[in-house]
Amino acid sequence: MNLKIALLGGDGIGPEVLSQSIKCLHAVEETFNHHFTYTEGLIGAAAMDKFGTPLPKETIALCTEADAILFGAIGTLKYDENPSAKIRPEQGLLQLRTELKLFTNIRPVKVFPTLIDKSPLKKNIIFGTDFVIYRELTGGIYFGEKKLNPEGTVASDLCEYSEKEISRIAHLAFKAAKNRRKKLTLVDKANVMESSRLWRKVVTKIGESYPEVELDFLFVDNAAMQMMLDPSHFDVILTENMFGDILSDQGSAICGSKGLLPSASIGNEHAMFEPFHGSYPQAEGKNIANPVASILSTAMMLNHLGLDEEARAIVAAVKKALRKNIVTVDLNPDSKYGTEEVGDFIAKNI
Amino acid sequence: MNLKIALLGGDGIGPEVLSQSIKCLHAVEETFNHHFTYTEGLIGAAAMDKFGTPLPKETIALCTEADAILFGAIGTLKYDENPSAKIRPEQGLLQLRTELKLFTNIRPVKVFPTLIDKSPLKKNIIFGTDFVIYRELTGGIYFGEKKLNPEGTVASDLCEYSEKEISRIAHLAFKAAKNRRKKLTLVDKANVMESSRLWRKVVTKIGESYPEVELDFLFVDNAAMQMMLDPSHFDVILTENMFGDILSDQGSAICGSKGLLPSASIGNEHAMFEPFHGSYPQAEGKNIANPVASILSTAMMLNHLGLDEEARAIVAAVKKALRKNIVTVDLNPDSKYGTEEVGDFIAKNI
Ligand SMILES: CC(C)[C@H](C(=O)O)[C@@H](O)C(=O)O
Ligand SMILES: CC(C)[C@H](C(=O)O)[C@@H](O)C(=O)O
Repeated sequence: MNLKIALLGGDGIGPEVLSQSIKCLHAVEETFNHHFTYTEGLIGAAAMDKFGTPLPKETIALCTEADAILFGAIGTLKYDENPSAKIRPEQGLLQLRTELKLFTNIRPVKVFPTLIDKSPLKKNIIFGTDFVIYRELTGGIYFGEKKLNPEGTVASDLCEYSEKEISRIAHLAFKAAKNRRKKLTLVDKANVMESSRLWRKVVTKIGESYPEVELDFLFVDNAAMQMMLDPSHFDVILTENMFGDILSDQGSAICGSKGLLPSASIGNEHAMFEPFHGSYPQAEGKNIANPVASILSTAMMLNHLGLDEEARAIVAAVKKALRKNIVTVDLNPDSKYGTEEVGDFIAKNI
Repeated sequence: MNLKIALLGGDGIGPEVLSQSIKCLHAVEETFNHHFTYTEGLIGAAAMDKFGTPLPKETIALCTEADAILFGAIGTLKYDENPSAKIRPEQGLLQLRTELKLFTNIRPVKVFPTLIDKSPLKKNIIFGTDFVIYRELTGGIYFGEKKLNPEGTVASDLCEYSEKEISRIAHLAFKAAKNRRKKLTLVDKANVMESSRLWRKVVTKIGESYPEVELDFLFVDNAAMQMMLDPSHFDVILTENMFGDILSDQGSAICGSKGLLPSASIGNEHAMFEPFHGSYPQAEGKNIANPVASILSTAMMLNHLGLDEEARAIVAAVKKALRKNIVTVDLNPDSKYGTEEVGDFIAKNI
């Protein structure tokens, strides 16, 4: 199979972890006799430094032409200090989501049995946790109208949702639930927000076409609590952009290391895969960043492209590395393995 | 001292736990030679059933005249099923917050050493946790304009904040930090939201008048993660209404039982005290609800009214009950003590 893959390393540890993914893809090409071509683009702070914009049009073009996109991370300390700056690295990511219409963010939260001790939660609480968050990614308060009065004393953000925006992601979430434990939880704040009430109405209606899926509702405050008290009872969580941002980060903490979790951002025409974790600029260039999240994101990409066996080979190699304790220092403080060594081991075992 | 206290039991277990608070207040009156008068008002579902509105004007009047308000809880299963109904019990609470201008919600999250094992978090993670959330309570997306187009296909909520709304709560939060460990964390989403950027600007400026307080910033997604990974490093958290709702519920889960945590909602003229937990309708009338949160809210009320010694006496009695394991079933599944018995014990020990 011939595939075109766009590589957006981004900032901080993004490029380093992405390099490990590419090693794995080379191994996949060899083992399964595929041919992938790679094109690299700039985004985020790296693009700002070179082009003055966090999302150059060259980058958009190469993403549009690719069969799939692998993304590293965005943000540097320099820009983080000033979230009020007119141009910020994150805008590159937000714009890219819009440009490519990546309306669904999928974040699986699964505890690896070998790593259960890494969780901040007690074993009996975390045991068996395996859920996936479907977060709406191109609507809501992130993209609604923003206002600041001329005096700079009153500011506002609009959270708006349309039936269409809700229904396209809802269908994906119901389909996912159908193939899993058949439970879908819509997280909203329908006792307070008009947009949440629309979510509830639309999702309830769509639920009628998925009679095998049990649908329930949880207010977002309660959801944040349940994720702490009883995370294993969730199967598929469906929610809007901002709530999804908060809950998926909370969910990632469950697993003990942010360095383990992959994610996918998909639309009808394009798909992008990225590790859960951020750019972690403090670790940049130190060969200590955990490449597993990026490598598992690559497996999600292969799944998405229909290469299920190839994806399974990557996941198996990752599990082997975890089992043999060939991991970075976030998982084992005494580890002698760095980003490169863990990447090498996983690639070699594909 | 003569004081007028308004009692709003509300729904579910609200009235039962409030009764235990009143027992404690009677004990305080006797021991410290005070005279309190109590007036009762309806709110929430109870008020809807009787008056057709969740906040009758009689209730507003008696709250306005009182020196302080004790609140139980709001919401019943009947109304929870339909969050889209035109009139809902929660509106009573939201309106009351507005009417009385209770712009600051204060939620201390503190782990009782005797109950550390109840936490879903591991001991080493939770140990030493003692923070307080200052949540803005009368602004933001809860109260911004809500719209639904005539076709019912597009809905929106506006999140708006003014400098004035931010600054009045910020001053309270800085003062609290000054009297604690001198750390204030502003939680926002300034990389995405205009209103968050205003929060950051205003809070930074106010921070200059509190040089002894160290101010830092955390994006809300990161805050939800840190609360799981490292809750003990927080001191005072300041945040807007919706983020505060989510984080304080997440925070309450840290302690293992929602039945333990008190809260205060204060403005310049009025103050209301209520347990963290909701109305828990499943437990109504069963004498199993934990009265500690309501009783500790009463202690917060006494503190607020300048009766510090009296407040300390209540807290000491609560600690004694916990130490002697005179607790409800949420804390000890084999307990033979119910709501009333725990209330009696605490009142007797004041
Ligand atoms: C970088 C930031 C804008 C982004 C978001 O909030 O969507 C990130 O937190 C994420 O979750 O992907
Ligand atoms: C009942 C509800 C409207 C309320 C809120 O979200 O403010 C509650 O969750 C709270 O935290 O006090």
